[in-house]
Amino acid sequence: MLEPFSLEQLVQEFASLPGIGKKTARRLAYHLLQKPKQDIERFADRLKEVSIKVRPCSKCYLYTDTEICSVCCERVGAKSICVVEKPSDVLPFERSGIYQGLYFVLGGVLSPLDGVGPEKLHLTKLVKRVQEENIEELILALGSSPEAESTMLLIDRLMSDLPVKCTRLARGIPMGSDLEFVDEITMLKAFEGRNML
Amino acid sequence: MLEPFSLEQLVQEFASLPGIGKKTARRLAYHLLQKPKQDIERFADRLKEVSIKVRPCSKCYLYTDTEICSVCCERVGAKSICVVEKPSDVLPFERSGIYQGLYFVLGGVLSPLDGVGPEKLHLTKLVKRVQEENIEELILALGSSPEAESTMLLIDRLMSDLPVKCTRLARGIPMGSDLEFVDEITMLKAFEGRNML
Repeated sequence: MLEPFSLEQLVQEFASLPGIGKKTARRLAYHLLQKPKQDIERFADRLKEVSIKVRPCSKCYLYTDTEICSVCCERVGAKSICVVEKPSDVLPFERSGIYQGLYFVLGGVLSPLDGVGPEKLHLTKLVKRVQEENIEELILALGSSPEAESTMLLIDRLMSDLPVKCTRLARGIPMGSDLEFVDEITMLKAFEGRNML
Repeated sequence: MLEPFSLEQLVQEFASLPGIGKKTARRLAYHLLQKPKQDIERFADRLKEVSIKVRPCSKCYLYTDTEICSVCCERVGAKSICVVEKPSDVLPFERSGIYQGLYFVLGGVLSPLDGVGPEKLHLTKLVKRVQEENIEELILALGSSPEAESTMLLIDRLMSDLPVKCTRLARGIPMGSDLEFVDEITMLKAFEGRNML
C-alpha cells in the first residue's frame, strides 16, 4: 500500500487495541494527522507520562501515581473490601456510586491450565489486609466463569477463621433485557434468587 | 472519580478521537496499562515519529515521509488524476485495487459559509500539474454534498481550455443494499444512469 512507513506503524499500534480493527485504526491515524502537530505530541507525551507515573497501589493494586491510591487514602477505616480481578472492573462500581468501601485487585483468577495457581494471585496480601484493618465484609466480584467460582470458594475458605463475611453479587435478569432472550443459567439463578415484592 | 490524573488525561486523549466515547476511551487506557511499559512507550514514540516525519507530498498533498510520495514516484507518467477532498479518501480506491493512476488532494471543498473560497483549495497547483504532465482524465471524487458539486463544476470550468476530460464516479444502488431502503435521490440517479444488460 502507498502509506509512509511511520504512518503504517502508528496504524498498527491503534489496531492492537481491543475492539479496533485495521480500518478503524487507519481512520484514527488519519484523523490525528489532520490535527496540529502539538496535538499529536501531547498525545504521545501523555502516553509516556502514564507509562512512567502510573503503577499499582501498594495496598490494593488499583492504578495510582502516588504510593497509595486515592481510594485507599480517602476511604481509610471502611469495613468492606470489594475484590475484583483487574483494575478496570472497579469502573462500573464507581459509575453507579452505590459502593463507598475499599477495593482489592486480585490480579487474576485461578486457572490451572494457564499456570495460574494461588501463589500468582495477591491472596496473602488480601488475608493480611482483612486481618489488619478488621474488615467485616468481602464482596467477591469476580465474574461467573468456573475459574472465578473456584477462586471465590478458595477465598471463602481462606477467610473461614476470620470474623469477616464473604458475599457475592446477585445473579439475575439484567435491567431492560427481554425475558425471551435470557439464557438458561441466568434464568435459573434469577428464579432461585427471587424476592418478595 | 478515583483515577490518577495522568491516566485521566490519557483517557481524554483517546476520547477526542472520532467514534470513541468516554467509556471506550477508558477501556483502551486500562488495556494499555496491562501491557509492558515498553509497549506504551513504543506507542508514544510512533506518535511522535508520525508528527515529526509525516507531511503532505509536495506534488499531490497525500501523506508522505519523503519529499514526494510513493504514488507520485511509482506511477510517474500516468495520465489520470483522481481528485479527492482529504488524504483518507484515497483508501477505498487503493483497497479496491481498481485504480492505478495518480491522486490529488484538494484540501477541502468550496464552502462560502465556512469561509472556504477557491483560494483555500489547491486549485492552481492542480491546473499546473494537469498542464505539465499532460493529464488526460481528471476523476473528480468529491462526494455528493452541494459544496462538493459546486467544487466539481468549478474544476470542470477551470479545465475547459485544457485537453483533459473531467469525469465523476457513478451514482447508484450500492452493492448488497435492499431496494426498499434506497433513498429518493440515489434511486433517481440509479434510474437515470441505467445500463444495458
